[in-house]
Amino acid sequence: MNFDRNIYLTNIDLSDAKEKMLKKFAVQLQEPKTEVLAVDDTLGRITYKSVFAKISSPYFNASAMDGIAVTSKRTFGADERNSITLRINQDFVYIDTGDVIKNPFDSVIMIEDVVYVDEERVKINKASSPWQHIRPIGEDIVASELIVPSYHEISPFDIASLLCGGITEIEVLKKPLIAILPTGTEIIEAEDKIEEGKIIDSNSRMFIAMTKQIGAKANRYKPIVDDYELIKQRILEATKNNDIVVVIAGTSAGREDYISSIIKELGEVIVHGIAIKPGKPAIIGVINEKPIIGVPGYPVSAYIVFKQIVEPLISEYLRAKEQKREVVEAILSRRLVSSLKHLEFVRMKLGSVSGKLIATPLSRGAGVTMSLVKADGVAIIDKNIEGIEAGETVKIELLKDIDMINNSIVSIGSHDVIMDVIASLVTEQDKQYSLSSAHVGSLGGIMAMKRGETHIAPIHLLDEKTGVYNISYINKYLKKQNISIIKGVKREQGLMVEKGNPKNIKGLSDLGNDDVVFVNRQKGSGTRILLDYKMKELGLDSANVVGYEREMTTHMMVASAVLSGSADVGLGIKSASTAMGLEFISIGEEEYDFAIDDKFLKEERIKIFIDVLKSNTFADELKKLEGYSIENAGKINKY
Amino acid sequence: MNFDRNIYLTNIDLSDAKEKMLKKFAVQLQEPKTEVLAVDDTLGRITYKSVFAKISSPYFNASAMDGIAVTSKRTFGADERNSITLRINQDFVYIDTGDVIKNPFDSVIMIEDVVYVDEERVKINKASSPWQHIRPIGEDIVASELIVPSYHEISPFDIASLLCGGITEIEVLKKPLIAILPTGTEIIEAEDKIEEGKIIDSNSRMFIAMTKQIGAKANRYKPIVDDYELIKQRILEATKNNDIVVVIAGTSAGREDYISSIIKELGEVIVHGIAIKPGKPAIIGVINEKPIIGVPGYPVSAYIVFKQIVEPLISEYLRAKEQKREVVEAILSRRLVSSLKHLEFVRMKLGSVSGKLIATPLSRGAGVTMSLVKADGVAIIDKNIEGIEAGETVKIELLKDIDMINNSIVSIGSHDVIMDVIASLVTEQDKQYSLSSAHVGSLGGIMAMKRGETHIAPIHLLDEKTGVYNISYINKYLKKQNISIIKGVKREQGLMVEKGNPKNIKGLSDLGNDDVVFVNRQKGSGTRILLDYKMKELGLDSANVVGYEREMTTHMMVASAVLSGSADVGLGIKSASTAMGLEFISIGEEEYDFAIDDKFLKEERIKIFIDVLKSNTFADELKKLEGYSIENAGKINKY
Repeated sequence: MNFDRNIYLTNIDLSDAKEKMLKKFAVQLQEPKTEVLAVDDTLGRITYKSVFAKISSPYFNASAMDGIAVTSKRTFGADERNSITLRINQDFVYIDTGDVIKNPFDSVIMIEDVVYVDEERVKINKASSPWQHIRPIGEDIVASELIVPSYHEISPFDIASLLCGGITEIEVLKKPLIAILPTGTEIIEAEDKIEEGKIIDSNSRMFIAMTKQIGAKANRYKPIVDDYELIKQRILEATKNNDIVVVIAGTSAGREDYISSIIKELGEVIVHGIAIKPGKPAIIGVINEKPIIGVPGYPVSAYIVFKQIVEPLISEYLRAKEQKREVVEAILSRRLVSSLKHLEFVRMKLGSVSGKLIATPLSRGAGVTMSLVKADGVAIIDKNIEGIEAGETVKIELLKDIDMINNSIVSIGSHDVIMDVIASLVTEQDKQYSLSSAHVGSLGGIMAMKRGETHIAPIHLLDEKTGVYNISYINKYLKKQNISIIKGVKREQGLMVEKGNPKNIKGLSDLGNDDVVFVNRQKGSGTRILLDYKMKELGLDSANVVGYEREMTTHMMVASAVLSGSADVGLGIKSASTAMGLEFISIGEEEYDFAIDDKFLKEERIKIFIDVLKSNTFADELKKLEGYSIENAGKINKY
Repeated sequence: MNFDRNIYLTNIDLSDAKEKMLKKFAVQLQEPKTEVLAVDDTLGRITYKSVFAKISSPYFNASAMDGIAVTSKRTFGADERNSITLRINQDFVYIDTGDVIKNPFDSVIMIEDVVYVDEERVKINKASSPWQHIRPIGEDIVASELIVPSYHEISPFDIASLLCGGITEIEVLKKPLIAILPTGTEIIEAEDKIEEGKIIDSNSRMFIAMTKQIGAKANRYKPIVDDYELIKQRILEATKNNDIVVVIAGTSAGREDYISSIIKELGEVIVHGIAIKPGKPAIIGVINEKPIIGVPGYPVSAYIVFKQIVEPLISEYLRAKEQKREVVEAILSRRLVSSLKHLEFVRMKLGSVSGKLIATPLSRGAGVTMSLVKADGVAIIDKNIEGIEAGETVKIELLKDIDMINNSIVSIGSHDVIMDVIASLVTEQDKQYSLSSAHVGSLGGIMAMKRGETHIAPIHLLDEKTGVYNISYINKYLKKQNISIIKGVKREQGLMVEKGNPKNIKGLSDLGNDDVVFVNRQKGSGTRILLDYKMKELGLDSANVVGYEREMTTHMMVASAVLSGSADVGLGIKSASTAMGLEFISIGEEEYDFAIDDKFLKEERIKIFIDVLKSNTFADELKKLEGYSIENAGKINKY
């Protein structure tokens, strides 16, 4: 073991890094690779040169109407008083829309203006001017006319026009081939059996999807172990057969972070370390005149670096504009502390409450892919900004459709697995609505309701004095608002322990045992309030509970800690315990309800939420979980 | 021949037609078809049910840092004055980010905070709290947690999270299969040889692209002739094997418009005739419980009906929101007369001039596919609106990217094929810029400049008195503005006649011959002004010129009329004559320049336009065409 790690990366600005990159590859980008494709296969592709029509459309003088073709001179003088009689095949022929107008005919009379006399003859009451109701050759496209310019993205109607102009093949920019190289001894394929110490390769498959989405071609290599020579050979091979090489992981400065050394050995490192967060340990290099991008292994970092570095580079190859997302302004719901030294990408949950768009920051862990899944948008916080205060406006790049965000029911408060069930049922009932939950604990929900940031706040708050749930907290914290409670469910709370209960835990008093490691919930959660209440009742001092300081934010994470053995016991709901296959020691039933400001009760989305709570489907779904009972779910109690 | 055509279609509102349709197919839409796919293949697909994690991620307690794993208790008491020495394998192990934290270790110290002593020992100067720098099991995803809800469109990071959650396959909505049936005796395939009376089938291939774009699957049938029984059999077959059937053409009320009768025979016609323009003769029907949509054959009508009727229906099958386009407000550049009885879709050219977005209506012919290719957006004009005045604001659904529109050089004025050449060169020079030309003749360009609707106006206007081009017109019409002229090209004007010159035309005086049919340009075009000037010189009366009233708007359309034999001669530029393989009788050289308001000269896009005119590439391209010479191209002359 030695300590000679290169822990000093540069901290170059993202825009400078991109500029350096594009300058370096200006030559590669000058003369694009192209291919000739059947027009049918060119949807979304980019033209190389301008395309000109080979033939005119229409290709002949065509009738624009159903009617008769005539010689205009023959009709002169016809009017309401002096009709002219025309003889078939001599003075006129019947034609339909699209039929050829042949010599000597030079005009069309609509069938509605023709008076039928007999099989042989018709009468007209109006003169017909030359070329009337005739689509002349080339009315749409004239041979040799420009149809689509160079570097133009082909649309469905471009395809139609090209075909009409006699073009069946065109030259388009070749999709650049992007090599995707996952590395890491711990990496396994999603199809393999997971075991301790192993990590499923998700980054490379996310990159395949991102590559497809932007219009390039992905060439994924199998994951390889952290072996300098192996990775070197793989990179060398990839730079020969692809247009851009993306290597995942090993880009930082750890013992097995070989990528920068390999690039130095085979070519040149242009940038190592970019002032972005997450994503700092990114590398931009060149080998065999091919760009090689080193992307950090943490999934969110990987996403940001691909989006900010690899996608703009691919766009250059495709001569496409960088795909920009819609930007909205939203009001920040809580203070956001930011990094002074980095441009920071903060995933945000958005909700439209009382006509205002409210943004709440999500987990900032670089390893939390769910923060991207749950995010509605990303706030990009400039460096040199220390933080942004709650109530200030932030600009947010949207990841989801703004209509969907505007139609979503915002729920901030306590966590329960039934929130996922309700979310599914809401969308199934009306696909334009959705339920978007943030889990900050019951008291957090009450505070969000006070600040007007949420429609509903799921809570289960026990009043120590009265033993009654929820009402006293509303009276205390939300007395200035008109609040109702929508009845939710009753659920069992209890201790979750490993199967077989190896520490023989009987109840809460056992938390004081020296050999018992507890895992706690965060302050402000209803479960924590319940715990502290019960501990006080028992006269149990928190200083004597090992693990009391370790806080988790959901029931599932507590259950998970117990399952993994990092704790012996946690307090939580039965459904979470059952879901994780744990043993459950019940300590009682509590009421999990939804506080709501009355002004939202008339909104359609809230009506649907209440309908779902009242539905039989919801009752059926609860039966599949364990530890719930319902009584008056969906009933509104005013306070 | 008989007259019993069903010429009476209904005129139901589009919204009512859609409502009727969706109501009719509510049953078909209730229980969607699904399929199970590998997660990798689900980008952009819609989930059926909610998907929950099978395993936690991380799957084990993992180090979040490079450093050493320790037992937190062993570190208590360490501080700057009292360092604690730890022994390898006994008190600590070296670990990298992602490594498993195994019992008894419960804490990680960053390598930066570790003091190396020797191979066996390190020192620490700070206590380490339990679970510090450890990513607990399930930090990202806890087993059984919701990853994506039902009816959710899969994104690249959804794929990553699903894989991390141990999901390798999910159930998604099956892409509905859309049968596309082109009909018409005159229809040929794009690959076939075109001949008089034939029309290339472009609609069905446009529909394939539109179907793909929206996320469904196209099943195109070969075109069939207008034979009642044949079409009936084809439709019957298609309704059995597809989810939605789209029949092209034959939907109106002509002699061979069989579709409504066939649907009546096999099933039910729900709607025939919708109050939209273009697109009125659309049919919505049902056969074998499958929706069948009859789409008119004119390409623009076909596009509108597919977009407005078929796409929303497909969206319902996909449980996707109807794809809405971005809407902008623009100032109408000229009066728009609208249909009182129909909702009208008017293709619009947009340009950003002096910070205002200006909209100019394009050709409204239902057969002009190029009006879609050239359009930047579509204005949807409500029925019961007679017209909209110039200067009023209209809402426009964008077909192209607004940034592209904002960066486009707007040119309104005379037509010349070199405008296409310049357009290509501008984009090649800087892909964010483009040149967008509208051809309204030289005087039309001057008027657009006066109204502030264009950056440049290509003109070639001869002053009859002085014989000097362009300047006198600017002095006359644009005296209130500061106008410069950017020198363009000199080009030859002359008479275009069929190869071999069968009517033996020697010069303009021959236009007076009785057996010579002329084709003219529109009033206000420079070529028309030249013609009228020359005719006056010759004392030739327009009443004696056959075809003087027939006006075309471009040189290419004049050439096309001569080539097709519908005229014997036209006046135009040599490059157009050569492009169409005609014989050319020169009558002289003229100056084709660009008027510009000085305030635009400092704009980057105009600088690029001028650079292109001055470039060698432009000079080279001109040499490939015939009839041009340059001298000082790109030079700015102030007036």
